[in-house]
Amino acid sequence: MHSTPAYDDLHARHRRLHHFSHLLALAGWDEAALMPLHGAAARTAAMAEMQGLIHSLQTDAELARLLEAAEAEALDDIQRANLREMRRNWRSANALPAALVEARTVANARCEQAWRLQRPVQDWAGHLPLLREVVKLTREQAACLADAKGLGLYDALLDEYEPGMRTAEIDRVFGDLRQWLPAMIGDVQERQRRRPLVEPRGPFPKSAQRELGLDAMRLLRFDFEAGRLDESTHPFCGGVPEDVRMTTRYAEDDFLMALMGTIHETGHGRYEQNLPREWLGQPIALARSMGVHESQSLSFEMQLGSHPGFASLLAPLLTRHFGAQKAFEPANLQRLLTRVRPGYIRVEADEVSYPCHVILRYEIERALVEGRIECEDIPALWDAKMMELLGLDTRGNFKDGCMQDVHWPAGLFGYFPCYTLGAMYAAQWFAAMRRAMPDLDMRIADGDLEAVFGWLREQVWHQGSRWETPELVRRASGESLDPAHFRAHLEARYLA
Amino acid sequence: MHSTPAYDDLHARHRRLHHFSHLLALAGWDEAALMPLHGAAARTAAMAEMQGLIHSLQTDAELARLLEAAEAEALDDIQRANLREMRRNWRSANALPAALVEARTVANARCEQAWRLQRPVQDWAGHLPLLREVVKLTREQAACLADAKGLGLYDALLDEYEPGMRTAEIDRVFGDLRQWLPAMIGDVQERQRRRPLVEPRGPFPKSAQRELGLDAMRLLRFDFEAGRLDESTHPFCGGVPEDVRMTTRYAEDDFLMALMGTIHETGHGRYEQNLPREWLGQPIALARSMGVHESQSLSFEMQLGSHPGFASLLAPLLTRHFGAQKAFEPANLQRLLTRVRPGYIRVEADEVSYPCHVILRYEIERALVEGRIECEDIPALWDAKMMELLGLDTRGNFKDGCMQDVHWPAGLFGYFPCYTLGAMYAAQWFAAMRRAMPDLDMRIADGDLEAVFGWLREQVWHQGSRWETPELVRRASGESLDPAHFRAHLEARYLA
Repeated sequence: MHSTPAYDDLHARHRRLHHFSHLLALAGWDEAALMPLHGAAARTAAMAEMQGLIHSLQTDAELARLLEAAEAEALDDIQRANLREMRRNWRSANALPAALVEARTVANARCEQAWRLQRPVQDWAGHLPLLREVVKLTREQAACLADAKGLGLYDALLDEYEPGMRTAEIDRVFGDLRQWLPAMIGDVQERQRRRPLVEPRGPFPKSAQRELGLDAMRLLRFDFEAGRLDESTHPFCGGVPEDVRMTTRYAEDDFLMALMGTIHETGHGRYEQNLPREWLGQPIALARSMGVHESQSLSFEMQLGSHPGFASLLAPLLTRHFGAQKAFEPANLQRLLTRVRPGYIRVEADEVSYPCHVILRYEIERALVEGRIECEDIPALWDAKMMELLGLDTRGNFKDGCMQDVHWPAGLFGYFPCYTLGAMYAAQWFAAMRRAMPDLDMRIADGDLEAVFGWLREQVWHQGSRWETPELVRRASGESLDPAHFRAHLEARYLA
Repeated sequence: MHSTPAYDDLHARHRRLHHFSHLLALAGWDEAALMPLHGAAARTAAMAEMQGLIHSLQTDAELARLLEAAEAEALDDIQRANLREMRRNWRSANALPAALVEARTVANARCEQAWRLQRPVQDWAGHLPLLREVVKLTREQAACLADAKGLGLYDALLDEYEPGMRTAEIDRVFGDLRQWLPAMIGDVQERQRRRPLVEPRGPFPKSAQRELGLDAMRLLRFDFEAGRLDESTHPFCGGVPEDVRMTTRYAEDDFLMALMGTIHETGHGRYEQNLPREWLGQPIALARSMGVHESQSLSFEMQLGSHPGFASLLAPLLTRHFGAQKAFEPANLQRLLTRVRPGYIRVEADEVSYPCHVILRYEIERALVEGRIECEDIPALWDAKMMELLGLDTRGNFKDGCMQDVHWPAGLFGYFPCYTLGAMYAAQWFAAMRRAMPDLDMRIADGDLEAVFGWLREQVWHQGSRWETPELVRRASGESLDPAHFRAHLEARYLA
């Protein structure tokens, strides 16, 4: 065996970071799901202390030398991939001057907190100066990251969430979508107008919805000895790979929100639960990216959850928990799950119109980051693009228009494309599965979901961060990202 | 204002420790109350990392100089009390060589884990070698602490849990109890044999018990915006002062266990919730000691919870959640709550016989620590003392005899006296309250519990660690610890 002292030192430091991140993740989950109101100040202070500690470990002056020295050591492929991820994290953590990190923390928190009050009352004018400060500092952040990574401004941000993804690629695939998607939305709606649909009759008691959600998670093989389901205002999948903490929320007049939300988060949860354990504590053992993560939640929610065969698995669960209803019959249930109705709100969008919401945001935020537009230009651009892509008039509607998302007030630029990348990766995974298993759709209808899970486990989950995203996509599906799979999926499901 | 650079530095370091302790406390609570089985290894590793970090901050070489320098600075009384507590913590953290700390961690964990399996099967022979190792290292620990504190061996351990308390004082008060308590237990039983008693009829569904517990917590003014109630195998009060996490456990055939357990933990919880906030993050803002903490849980559970006036407040809650029963009538309820039945198990003991369990353990563990006996002597001593103090034959019954508690296997020596000190402090608090408010018992029966809470808040809760325990007792009650108050309480409640 070769001696690899620098790599071993880095390995030990990352295991330490892993342990501290565990405590931070738990505190964040508890804050969102369980913490009583007056615990907030103490929690914020404790988490900030830990974030400070983690940042100081990530920016330790010794790291540069160790990363350099480790490059020259005799590492195997896995170690070299891990070193690549260590360097990526180190570059991101060290790219920004401390003063900029601090200024961003303050400006983003101030803007996000104000946004929570300004959005309900449509106070765009009051929001504007705060958002301008966020955008100004985001441009500085992008410049620093671009410099450190040798990338363009927007690419440098995008790469934080989707390593290896570039705007050239986004332009290619979003450009493709832009050509056929708006017309397809109209075609699907036209077609759906003619089919009968029975609406479910509520109310659906919360306790029964919770039991239904747990049953759905069991159906999807969530490991309850390594995770939990709780409630929170904004559902998310938190915790750590060894102990996944999912949350959902309930509305008693609409069981589909919690059910499909739970199925979505279960996709995130199973990815985390099945990350490679043999590299535990190292960057390479972590989920690859936001886009790949979303490809798992959408594989569960859209590819599988809205699959006609899956509806026949869900239907008996609905009857068990709510009693029998005409609306729960599999064919009708699947129509409910695949109803296409373009609307103002991204998070409520169906899978056909969702990409339009993302394309609009990508075009606006990229122009903002690159300095081609300013914050005051957002509403007019928003209105124009909503009309162009979805045929909806949003003029004067800030609340359900350009103020609807937390991302920009929170300083998260470069994140939005991941949602639609995830939808396209998911379609590509299922296309690859069908080539490997031509009877896949029958197996799903028969309840043999292990066909899907086995493929995802091997091709995606167990890969962790072994490869950068484009390479992961090629290895898993045999080809580069190709929006044709997403198009074929929509055509097969909605227009066949 | 005087410049106090050394004190200010210590202040900032302790605030940092406070934040890290918050994360550790949350992780510990979650581990006991919510964590799924397979999260254990990751949690243990993360918590050990944090304990290591906290220990390294507590043993930083710079601290000795700062503590010395701060002594010479112009501090006010509060700062000086805080400095005293800082020095106490520093002395405890630095008294043991690192090798001993590590050896104890391993030996205690090994013995406690084995105990969980050995106790149910009465495997005293298998347990003995592991316990011997724990006792050997506890003696070394006691010698180091005694050296650092200038105290006797057992005093040095006792002082870790009850600062300022000494064996001379324990001998005085336990010696007093020993003279009259065994006879009193017999007298009370004789008397109780003659009174009629209606047993409650179950089952009592868990969900109704939980709602009852929450109602009892509301009655006792627990602040639900700064705390929660959950479930765990071994009930405890965890979390942090700003966010108290209480747990309980339920048996469907016996609602009193969960109810009185919840009332007990609510006493701990309100103490934490009402610690002084103006010193937040400093040692002086923390609860004084284990004995004083227990005096709060016993003020709630025993002094108040088993008070005849309190039974009339509890009765309507029982009827609300379980329907009406003869057994719930206040007079009968209070008889249920004050039933005296000496038994083998300390944690199930009534308030009259409980001190006998503690005196027995104190005498044995002190002799062990001082090297006057060895582990193999424990069973015979246990049997003799159980017969002498409670008239019970425990020969051959290890499970419900000398193997019943986790304390010794876990290396906790010097802790047991705190339970009975707490009961005696609680009796002394209520004696002082009655001197200040002669109508106290009527006020309790009228539901004016603020009479009790106001006194505890001012005299105990808001004092934090401002004073060492003996001084706190004198200031709050106007006199030193006097077992006469505990005796008078038992006589008034059980023999009047």
